[in-house]
Parts: sequence; C-alpha cells; structure tokens
Amino acid sequence: MSNKNYVDTQDFSKEEILDIMHLGLLIKDNLKSGYPLNVLYHKTLGMIFEQSSTRTRVSFETAMTQLGGHAQYLAPGQIQLGAHESLKDTAMVLSRLVDILMARVQKHESITDLAKYASVPVINGMSDYNHPTQEMGDITTMYEHMPEGKSFENLKVVFVGDATQVCASLSMMITKLGGHFVQYGPKGFQLNEHFQKIARENCAKSGGSFLITENEDEALKDADFIYTDVWYGLYESELSEEERMGIFYPKYQVDMDMIKKASPNVKFMHCLPATRGEEVTDEVIDSEYSIVIDQAENRLTSIRALLVYFMGKKDETIAICKKNLGR
Amino acid sequence: MSNKNYVDTQDFSKEEILDIMHLGLLIKDNLKSGYPLNVLYHKTLGMIFEQSSTRTRVSFETAMTQLGGHAQYLAPGQIQLGAHESLKDTAMVLSRLVDILMARVQKHESITDLAKYASVPVINGMSDYNHPTQEMGDITTMYEHMPEGKSFENLKVVFVGDATQVCASLSMMITKLGGHFVQYGPKGFQLNEHFQKIARENCAKSGGSFLITENEDEALKDADFIYTDVWYGLYESELSEEERMGIFYPKYQVDMDMIKKASPNVKFMHCLPATRGEEVTDEVIDSEYSIVIDQAENRLTSIRALLVYFMGKKDETIAICKKNLGR
Amino acid sequence: MSNKNYVDTQDFSKEEILDIMHLGLLIKDNLKSGYPLNVLYHKTLGMIFEQSSTRTRVSFETAMTQLGGHAQYLAPGQIQLGAHESLKDTAMVLSRLVDILMARVQKHESITDLAKYASVPVINGMSDYNHPTQEMGDITTMYEHMPEGKSFENLKVVFVGDATQVCASLSMMITKLGGHFVQYGPKGFQLNEHFQKIARENCAKSGGSFLITENEDEALKDADFIYTDVWYGLYESELSEEERMGIFYPKYQVDMDMIKKASPNVKFMHCLPATRGEEVTDEVIDSEYSIVIDQAENRLTSIRALLVYFMGKKDETIAICKKNLGR
Repeated sequence: MSNKNYVDTQDFSKEEILDIMHLGLLIKDNLKSGYPLNVLYHKTLGMIFEQSSTRTRVSFETAMTQLGGHAQYLAPGQIQLGAHESLKDTAMVLSRLVDILMARVQKHESITDLAKYASVPVINGMSDYNHPTQEMGDITTMYEHMPEGKSFENLKVVFVGDATQVCASLSMMITKLGGHFVQYGPKGFQLNEHFQKIARENCAKSGGSFLITENEDEALKDADFIYTDVWYGLYESELSEEERMGIFYPKYQVDMDMIKKASPNVKFMHCLPATRGEEVTDEVIDSEYSIVIDQAENRLTSIRALLVYFMGKKDETIAICKKNLGR
Repeated sequence: MSNKNYVDTQDFSKEEILDIMHLGLLIKDNLKSGYPLNVLYHKTLGMIFEQSSTRTRVSFETAMTQLGGHAQYLAPGQIQLGAHESLKDTAMVLSRLVDILMARVQKHESITDLAKYASVPVINGMSDYNHPTQEMGDITTMYEHMPEGKSFENLKVVFVGDATQVCASLSMMITKLGGHFVQYGPKGFQLNEHFQKIARENCAKSGGSFLITENEDEALKDADFIYTDVWYGLYESELSEEERMGIFYPKYQVDMDMIKKASPNVKFMHCLPATRGEEVTDEVIDSEYSIVIDQAENRLTSIRALLVYFMGKKDETIAICKKNLGR
Repeated sequence: MSNKNYVDTQDFSKEEILDIMHLGLLIKDNLKSGYPLNVLYHKTLGMIFEQSSTRTRVSFETAMTQLGGHAQYLAPGQIQLGAHESLKDTAMVLSRLVDILMARVQKHESITDLAKYASVPVINGMSDYNHPTQEMGDITTMYEHMPEGKSFENLKVVFVGDATQVCASLSMMITKLGGHFVQYGPKGFQLNEHFQKIARENCAKSGGSFLITENEDEALKDADFIYTDVWYGLYESELSEEERMGIFYPKYQVDMDMIKKASPNVKFMHCLPATRGEEVTDEVIDSEYSIVIDQAENRLTSIRALLVYFMGKKDETIAICKKNLGR
C-alpha cells in the first residue's frame, strides 16, 4: 500500500487507479452474486460533512454496512473543522476513536490538514479543489460501458460546461489514464493554468491529449463520453440562475444536437444532481445514451474498493471474492 | 409477494394484513426468547424524513439492527424530495445505493412518486394523507389486548377527536378487517367524503360498519378501544392552542367519564406523542385502561414484519423463528 | 449489578469504579490484540443529544459497533426532552424501542428524570451538574500513566481554572478513590459548597484530601497530574472571550512555568476541546507532558466498559477476553 490518504485525484499512479477499479468491480460481482463480505468487521468510518451530500454520504454508509462495519455521520453543523478546536486536535482525537475518516470540506486545505494530522487514512469526499472518489467511480462506469475496440488509451471524453471540481478531477483522471480529454466551455469558466499544467504533464507521461475549446464541432467529434455538471459555480462565487443561464445557455446545454455530433455510441454522464433544463435536457438524460444511474451506482462500487484498500484488506478481499466466485 | 410498496393503508387485503401481523408477532416472540435474526444481513434501509419523528425513526432503525442490517437516517434538511433534483432522479439513484426505502413526507404525492420511480420497495412512514405503518402496529396491539370472546370482526373501535391521518388510516384498517369503526368528532373535523366512501366500500366487502357522530353516548356504547390523537390539525392548517381548545375542549377530551361509558374492558390507545391535558387526561393515559406504551412498542413489531415482507424474506423468517421456538 | 443508571459521578463505590476501569482495560487489550467482541450483538443504544458533542457521541457510537450493536444518534433539535411530549412518556416509549439510553442534557433534572422513568439503563453523557463518563475515562488514563511507586491513594491531581462540570466530577472521583484533589482557581469560579461537602465526605471515607486555593505554588507542588478545561463558563452564564480572559488570564493559563512547579513526572490532561492560547499554551499541550490524546481515546475505553456493565454482560465479557488473551 503506497498511500495513506486519497485527497487529490493525482495521488495514485495509473496502475494503482486501475488496480482499485478492478478491486471495485470484483467486490461488486461478489455482492451481486449474493456473497456477503465482512472484511471491515466492526470497523468504524468517521464521515465529516461540512456541506450536505446525498450520493457521497449514502454510498460511504452503505459501503461500510456491506463490508461489515459502520459509518458515523457527522453532519454539517455537528462538527466544524478548525472552528471550536484546532483541526490538528480534531484529527488526532478522531484517529483514536475511528478506524478511517472521510470528509467533504469547504476548503481543500481542511482535507490536506486532516490527512496530515490524522494517523488513520483520510479520503476526500469533495473539496473546492477536486472530487477524487467521483472520478474513481466514473472510470468504472466508462470501463463497463467501454465502446467495442476502445480502451482508456484511445477514449475521447468531453466535459461540457463550467470547470467544476468534477471537471478538474475528470481532466486529471483521463489524462493520467492516457485518454483524450476535452473541456468544451466558455472563456472565464475553463480549467485554469494550474490544472492545464497537470493535464499536460499527465499527457507527456501517458500519451494522452488535452484540449480546451469553445468550438462545439471540434469538441464533440468522435466523443465516446459526454459529461456535464451543474452551472452553479464554485462555493465562493456562486452564480444566480439568471447569471449562469446568461453565460452557458443555450450553447453549453447538452441536448440531442450535441449527442448527434459525437460518436454514434456516445454515452451521456453526469455526476448528479442535475438541473434538468439547464445543463442537460430531459430528452438526453432520459434517453438510452444516458448512463447516469449506472454512474451513480458506481460511486458505491469505487468507494467500497477505496475503503478496502485503505484499511489494508485488498489482498484478503480479492482472495475471498475469487474463491466465492470460483475464479 | 403481491405488493412492491406500502404507501396507502388500503394497499393490502385483509388476509395480507393479518399475515403480516402474525409475522410480526412471530418475530417478536423469537427475539424476546433471545434468538437473534440475521435475515436482512448487511442490508440498508434508506430513511427519508421531511418532518422529524421519534417513534417512527427509532422503530425503523432498531428493526434494521435487530434483523442484521442498518438504517440510514436522512434528516429533514439533509434531503428534500423534488427540490435540488427531480424526485424521479433521487428515487432512481437511491434505488441503486440502498436496498429498501421509507419516507415521512409533507405531501402524499411525494411518497407515491417515490414508490413509482424507485426500483426498490418503498414504505410510507406517514404523509399528509395517511399513516399505514401506525395502523399495522395498532391492530397488533388490539390483537394482543383482544377482549375475551372478541375478534376483529365484532370489535368496536372509537376514535375521538380530529380526523387526522391516524384517524383516516384507522378507519380504513378497521373497516377492512370487518370491525365497527366510529369517529366521535365535531363537524368540520370529521373524515371527509373520500374516506367515508372507502370505509363504506370496505364495510360492504367485510361486513364491518362505520359511523361518524357528535353523540357521545352512541359513540362510546360498548366500545372495546378508545383511540385519540393530537388536536394540532394537519400541516397546512395547523391550529393554535387557543383555536383547538375552543373546538375540541372539553367535549372531545378522553377522560374517565368517557371510559366509563364504554365497555368495562375498554382499552385506551394513542399514537403518541400526547398533549396531556388536551386530548387526554393524565388520569386516563396513566390508568390501567391505557395500553399506549405497548402500542408504541408494536410500531417496532409491525415494522420488522414489513421490512422482512418487502425484502422477500417472509418464508425464510417464519421457518427460522418456528425452528427456534420449537413450533 | 448494583446500579441501573450512571447519572452522577457519586453513583459508584470505589470498588465498583475500579472494577469498571479494569473491565475497560481488559476490553481494550482484547480489541487491540485483534479479537472481535459481540457481547452486545444487535443491541441498540439510543443517544439523545440536547447539545452537540464530538468525543462523547463518536465514542459511544464506535463502542456500540465494536461490541456488535448499534447506536442511534438523536441530534439536538431532533428530540427535545419534555417539550413536545412529557419526558416521562418519552422515557417509557424509548425503553420499549431501544436497549439502553445515554443523554447529554441541558439540565441535570432531565437526566435524573430520564433515569427515573426509563425501564432501560440510562448513562449521563454530561449535564450542567457533572460529567461522569469523562471521569471514568480520566482515571483510566491516570492509571495507564501512573508515576512509578504511586497509586490513586497517594496521587495529587490539580485542576486549574474554572469549576466546570469536569472539575466537579474530577473532584468527586479523585476524593472517592482516596487521592489528593486541588482546584487552583479564582474566587467566584471555585467549586461550590455542595461539591465541597461531597468531597469532604468522600475524603472522610477514603483518606483522601481536598483543597481549593488561589496559591499557585501550594497548588502545584508535587502535582502528578495537571488538568484544565475551557473558560467558557456554564451554559446559563456563558462568558465572552474578553470576560474570561480578564478573569483567568494569565494567572490560570497552564504554561511551562506551571509544569515546572509540579512533580518532574507530571502529566498534562484536558477533556478537550481546548482553546489553545487561553487555558493552555501550545507549548504545553504539544509537549511530552501532554497525554490529552491518550485521554480522549480512553473515553472509548471506559464507555465500552459501562455499556457492557449496564447491559449485564460484565462476567461474560471478562471470560471471553481472558480466554482470547490466554490469561
């Protein structure tokens, strides 16, 4: 085990990412086949949420139950990192009372500090910088829906709209895996130089490519996956409905015209929740192109794998699942 | 298994209702005898509460623990059906992340929509229309305290006061089981034509009877159970203390005079919480006539049965319990 | 089992206190050695928090998971004792739905009433009167860090600062165990006559001693443990930062000068959360004298023991742990 924490999408190498993805898929097979797992028996995950969340919280909590453990939900307002007591003290104390921590934080510094001071593993459930567990799940969904003859190394993934944390994490993940990443979004709402630099470095290593453009035809040509996210904007600079519609609508709304410009096998993804009628039309999200529900389920798939990995149970879990499944 | 969901007190036939009641009693016997159950091993119940609740939430959560699973509490404010994302999306996503759902909702439409879009079973933990799990528990309590020589078919159950959701559900349940249901309450606060029609149809089938009256003597004569609920009024038309006292007090307060007008073996029931001094006197609720605490416990009894039923574990559970108990 | 509840630090005799402490240490050894426990299999703890808390809540919840059960978190606002329904009704109902209760309450009367009306055991997770589970953990930490040649009977424990609930509980605990307790704090913020009387009575029985002083040299001489708590003041008379600094600073801030006046082997304790820079300096709390993180961990140690004790599983647990550990 090389990492103690998962706070940054860049934390894992390509090999580790694929390893964890396959671990997730194996556990998924095992559970869908009706074999229970108990590898985190009586273990406790502490979940700190500075912002509320449905998918992330429910996924972590279900994952712990399915693995034999329990997740404690510390809701917004119930614990505030660095307010009542120093974050360092909170991290050191919780490390004695739980076995592993996850946190959704306002500021990325909170999660890096938590990881620094905690003696137990820390998983980032989203910060204002990035959203690594989302992307571990997303590549699992891409893998399951991989077009015939394709692999991550020649996949074209197009993110449409605002450079959210999900967009940032997706750009890091796809370029690290050697794929072709495009952000199709308006100037002022494109990935900043920091993320572009990371993407370029990833591409140099992986053979992937990276493009930011306002040209729709160029962006969507041969796209295997079209991905979008809400237009709210980041925490500190949230946009009103009027503002965001003025910026992104109608050009950056994913509609059937966009779908038709992509590969005939294109799939539509969204981290959810979606604001139907803004970043995506009902027609697209309810169509056969849409894999957003499979994608939501794979939050759970990848989170189970991450919990197993960080609790040092990877090899044991693989052995149990393979035995159960007769592989 | 005929139903996927339990959103309406009318969802089950008389035979199914009694079946689930007996399943609940069997599980209760099994647990009180010290035999653990694991039929919902590692399963997750998602609990959505748009309004807060103690009894319902604690009952569901304890039930899941006792059956080997876990209940996730999504508190008011943490999830809002149909607000941030479409209810349909929430239903479809949660169906991939949990095994079964329950919800206490503001509007009945929310629970019917949830049941419609979710692929997992959905149980209504109370809506502004009715409160089915309450009544599944209440008939269990009536069965345990059944006067000698009586059965549901010749039982007289009198609800005193405002036509709350509990009153509505009780009227449906008792008339479906062939009993005699009376609401003793003031005009303007009586069951509406919609519920009267259901009751009449139930009676036509079951041989039961149904009466709404402001006449105390007629209402209470030979009553086997006197049941009341708070006088707050429904969500959208909540009454102040002054208003409700003006309407219901003292005529509709359950006091020892009322008890004396009923059958000598009458029992007092209340779904709780009670506003002592309003709808019931301390003397009555603290008397030997009162079975409100047994009644509260049977929320748990019936909820365990419903969870087992909807998770498809009825036959397996019956077999395990009978073996444990040597029946 | 002599007690049904633990609401007051004085509830247990010296022998019982040491018994529970050793039970806690045995369970800790057992778990650290990797042997799971299941003595509270499928049992439910109801946790009522009228005020929020991190350490107490997380400790109870983790403890239940580690013992095979589950803790339900009833957060501030989700349940309010004696508001919506009578506390008596709440106590009687919850006793049917859970196996054991703990509560952190605003007013001590709430916890004594809860204990009076509940038919299941009730543990005080802090009231405005005292904080018994904190002290059960604290003596465990003192025992683990006991200076050579010392025992509780000749230990000098000095509490510095405001007479908080923790100070009160500590005074009761140390004097009951026969130790020497000192509060070093300013007039107006010293333990009141009620607590002084208890301390004197404890000392008469145990051979301990008891002192309240504003004299730093006298207070700290030969101190084995220096303990402090925040300066906020009690709920109903909370102090602003300016007020509390005016009263306690700099005289009652635990700094290295204080440490140097104590025994060379002195240890620093704090119930946490700490307001660094107020009641203690960074230098002290981050020094090798500080055992505050061990202390926080022992919240869990003692809470596990209390849960096992009150659920009637003490003998069974001892037998299992000793067998596991080969003792």
